Amino acid sequence: MTPATRRRGGDLESAIFDAVFAQLEAVGYAKLTMEGVATAARTGKAALYRRWKSKDELISDALKHVLPETPTAPDTGTVREDLLAILGCTRDTLVACRGAAFKVLKEETEAGKGIVHEVVRDRLSQPVRDLVYDALLRAAERGEIRPGAATRQVANVGQAVIVYHNLVEGGPLDDDYVRSVVDEVMMPLVRP
Amino acid sequence: MTPATRRRGGDLESAIFDAVFAQLEAVGYAKLTMEGVATAARTGKAALYRRWKSKDELISDALKHVLPETPTAPDTGTVREDLLAILGCTRDTLVACRGAAFKVLKEETEAGKGIVHEVVRDRLSQPVRDLVYDALLRAAERGEIRPGAATRQVANVGQAVIVYHNLVEGGPLDDDYVRSVVDEVMMPLVRP
Repeated sequence: MTPATRRRGGDLESAIFDAVFAQLEAVGYAKLTMEGVATAARTGKAALYRRWKSKDELISDALKHVLPETPTAPDTGTVREDLLAILGCTRDTLVACRGAAFKVLKEETEAGKGIVHEVVRDRLSQPVRDLVYDALLRAAERGEIRPGAATRQVANVGQAVIVYHNLVEGGPLDDDYVRSVVDEVMMPLVRP
Repeated sequence: MTPATRRRGGDLESAIFDAVFAQLEAVGYAKLTMEGVATAARTGKAALYRRWKSKDELISDALKHVLPETPTAPDTGTVREDLLAILGCTRDTLVACRGAAFKVLKEETEAGKGIVHEVVRDRLSQPVRDLVYDALLRAAERGEIRPGAATRQVANVGQAVIVYHNLVEGGPLDDDYVRSVVDEVMMPLVRP
């Protein structure tokens, strides 16, 4: 058992985020406190408040920590591979959101739902839409897709189909599914 | 003030559904009771229980009552007009769901959310997906669209885009928007 004072920034941060998830699952969102997290992470409340003004900020950062990184503008040279990489990230994020801590947050309170919604929007929805749009613009420049297909409306379609499938149908979100969205929806929609 | 005994089936039903919405807005889902609805509709609790086993069944029927009718297989002769008619219904239903009673139900409890989800799924999601699929099959037979485009995956795209737009972006759901989904997404996706 290493005392908290010996831990460096990254280790301490991981311990704090682990404690947030453990507390969420153990006591739920409403009863989670900065003090409880500090105790579970074997650090002081002051250390937490130095970095996070409120428990919502702390939970929000913990969620970001477990979500997959948004891909940084994949530029594979083909629109199909770009789309597979970007929409694969949408899939990974949705799968991560099915985890226990997300479930507690979404089901418990309006406040919890607000945090999840915000994190997913900042981390996923907005960047993915921009990345797909940029990929379409590059593909249009290369003459790989019809020029009129590089629009915001078209760029949102893949993500819309995957999110709808996940929310409404609760279907599987495996690699085959993502490929089918790219090959049966996005590619026919953009080809010259 | 007509006494309840003089009202015919349809009138009484309307009065009961009006009372459900008035009660939902006045006291919320949790405090709504069959007794409260009966009193507000000036009928007896027994009359309610004769038709609805529980308040959830009653609320569910009341919601169906205010939602637009699912269009019965429009067969306009062109896939574009068919899609405009069917997806217009998706739009109308989503707009109706923004009403006060839906808001109360969705925000208040898990139970309330379950009812809304079920009603919208039975009334909207499933029938609309079938209608679009049938319209695509007819269009493929006429040679109006490419044969490979008449799939379940393609049939779900329009509704997915509209629901995503409404949920995630909260954007306007006017006629222009529905037309843009048909003309900028569905038509390029299915044309030969």
